[in-house]
Amino acid sequence: MPKVSIERIEADILEVARFGLQEAGRGIYRQGFGKADMEARKWLGRRFEELGMAHRMDGAGNVIGRFGPDDRPAILIGSHLDSVPAGGIFDGVLGVVAGLEVVRTFIDNGIEPECPIEVVGTSEEEGRFGGMLGAQAMTGHVTREWLETASDEHGYALKDAMAEAGLDALDALHAYRRPEEIRAFLELHIEQGPVLEAERKTIGVVEGISGVFKWNCRLIGKAGHAGTAPMNMRSDAFMGIADFAHEIQRIIDEEGSEKSRITIGHVALKPGFPHTVPGEADFTIVGRDLDEDIMRGLANACRRVLSAIARKHGLKFEYEEMSWLKPAFCDEALVSLIEGKAKALDYSYKVMPSGAGHDAQFFCDHTRAAMIFVPSVGGISHAPDEWTQWSDIERGTQLLFDTVLELACEKVTA
Amino acid sequence: MPKVSIERIEADILEVARFGLQEAGRGIYRQGFGKADMEARKWLGRRFEELGMAHRMDGAGNVIGRFGPDDRPAILIGSHLDSVPAGGIFDGVLGVVAGLEVVRTFIDNGIEPECPIEVVGTSEEEGRFGGMLGAQAMTGHVTREWLETASDEHGYALKDAMAEAGLDALDALHAYRRPEEIRAFLELHIEQGPVLEAERKTIGVVEGISGVFKWNCRLIGKAGHAGTAPMNMRSDAFMGIADFAHEIQRIIDEEGSEKSRITIGHVALKPGFPHTVPGEADFTIVGRDLDEDIMRGLANACRRVLSAIARKHGLKFEYEEMSWLKPAFCDEALVSLIEGKAKALDYSYKVMPSGAGHDAQFFCDHTRAAMIFVPSVGGISHAPDEWTQWSDIERGTQLLFDTVLELACEKVTA
Repeated sequence: MPKVSIERIEADILEVARFGLQEAGRGIYRQGFGKADMEARKWLGRRFEELGMAHRMDGAGNVIGRFGPDDRPAILIGSHLDSVPAGGIFDGVLGVVAGLEVVRTFIDNGIEPECPIEVVGTSEEEGRFGGMLGAQAMTGHVTREWLETASDEHGYALKDAMAEAGLDALDALHAYRRPEEIRAFLELHIEQGPVLEAERKTIGVVEGISGVFKWNCRLIGKAGHAGTAPMNMRSDAFMGIADFAHEIQRIIDEEGSEKSRITIGHVALKPGFPHTVPGEADFTIVGRDLDEDIMRGLANACRRVLSAIARKHGLKFEYEEMSWLKPAFCDEALVSLIEGKAKALDYSYKVMPSGAGHDAQFFCDHTRAAMIFVPSVGGISHAPDEWTQWSDIERGTQLLFDTVLELACEKVTA
Repeated sequence: MPKVSIERIEADILEVARFGLQEAGRGIYRQGFGKADMEARKWLGRRFEELGMAHRMDGAGNVIGRFGPDDRPAILIGSHLDSVPAGGIFDGVLGVVAGLEVVRTFIDNGIEPECPIEVVGTSEEEGRFGGMLGAQAMTGHVTREWLETASDEHGYALKDAMAEAGLDALDALHAYRRPEEIRAFLELHIEQGPVLEAERKTIGVVEGISGVFKWNCRLIGKAGHAGTAPMNMRSDAFMGIADFAHEIQRIIDEEGSEKSRITIGHVALKPGFPHTVPGEADFTIVGRDLDEDIMRGLANACRRVLSAIARKHGLKFEYEEMSWLKPAFCDEALVSLIEGKAKALDYSYKVMPSGAGHDAQFFCDHTRAAMIFVPSVGGISHAPDEWTQWSDIERGTQLLFDTVLELACEKVTA
């Protein structure tokens, strides 16, 4: 059987890491459409060139290289080239470099696919401008209005950032790919979580991407002097959050699954002085599950529990649902195919949901899609010390190759 | 019996309120040694002048008027003239104006005290520079080093602020008053809490000022992606605080008294993003009680509970004790005297601790001191809508007068 080369993969990943690398230990700064990001895109174009692949940058900034015949729906292998600020070297890049390696392995072994293979370096997946622009554009999930108004956290407009990178934001509307053109979308990605490492698995076969809701919540009580207000005469907004946090595990036990997550990541007390009973508390709740009914159950329970706690503490409870993203499901046949290939390779694997969002989620409902995870050491990602063992990367890429090989050599009936 | 005049008291309070008043509803800005504060001090000097009282500003900025004979230890009636930013019209001012009214009532009724009565408008009680400068200077609680290095939250030095007000900071060392010169220190103040209103009392007879400790605490866990980190693989620093907050009432039930207070007023999560499990949580604990042994019990319990919670959640717990102020006790004979006078006037009263700090606390160990509280509507203070009914202010001032009258007409043996 043809084998992928970990030496080539490692060399490519370390080359891309140079784009946006800060001084030692400070990580990668390759935010979407910034200078380093555009340099990485040009690098990818040169790589395609070297392999003799037809290539282009589409209107959304996605860099796409094509290998194989031209008249059939394509197998897309892709992930993103941009990073979060202070990010790691694998997040996103792995899935692009793995695509290059799959094509190289086809070429080296003289295998000609029956359908084209496209390697895609998507743009702006990390949400600098609040979305996953590249994948959304390819699957018809961007609007003209959003392209014209989106801006980053510093108020810098998407269209200005794209113009500086030599792109016209509205051209992103032309990046759309009809489902009939796509045979499958496959993404290899680091897990960015601790599960595979903890369970000593080499591979995660992703069954879907969890849905997620985000609430901005507020508990309003009464500020007071921390010395003069007796404990039983307070309306302490923080004690309301604390009581709620204490109930989170029970809510999951009663309403959720082992795939459920509820997180309070942001808390701001007003006035926030040590000697003042907090009169107001703003906080966020982010809930996730792979089952949308369970998500609804978690959300309803959060609302009921917070309302009851508010009554008990004499607080007013307000919340606003900022977003509700449905779960996205990977294609069952692709999941089975990947499982079968993992078994054939004798890799230990786990079928699991992805708790984080990925480019693949937009392809799930658009065409058929699947994802492969490799373990993250210590579960760390979005940080300079993000790491994955090269041996795991080799196995993940080999599994991707074997999967693509089978898909690309099926008789295509589309 | 001689009666105080609420009309004169009201007129004085409203006059002082003009110094530092912002546009309607925004409250009083009369921070220590600022322009408005110094204008209020000059106003008080003119008031003393009109009453024919000898008066001076001491080296700490305290404005002191003297009435009565010169050769005996004095009864001091005082409180502060400065305010917090966006403060109310009664906090501090009431105790100074009440002192003026006591002297006016002596004069109007032709009563000559056997010992001098000094009315004191103290300086910088609200802690702009981190202390209670006026009262501390009079009782020997300031050091040269502190005077030379203290600065406000904007980094503006105490000595520069005092120089701008025409004062030399080091002269505060000369404001010291020997205990032998002071017969008693009496302070009438608004409660700044909800207890008297809730219990429908007109008067609080203060038995002491609660001690207070302040801790800066830190729980250190591990930041993680809120989607990829399963609930049982997290080291969520916020969940540690929440569990602790949940135990506060139990800690007070087991270790404290009805005078105990434990408050978490400040919380800062890192990184503080909605989609990230908090890896670090900084927060404050402020504990209070009138009994120092109970304070120690509360502090020990907080440490034990936080250590246990940290172990349970896989967190590291660190804390630093920023301050430990002992309780200060009012003079028992003075407390009894005030109680007796309240009974004679048929006022409803409650013997209670002061949870907030006051000028009087520095006089408690220096000489003998006592405080009278009047109710705060809704318990509100340090805010523009701080309010106390004029009828309660009249009763509080009458009680102060009756107390001073008895003290000033005792045969003085000192």
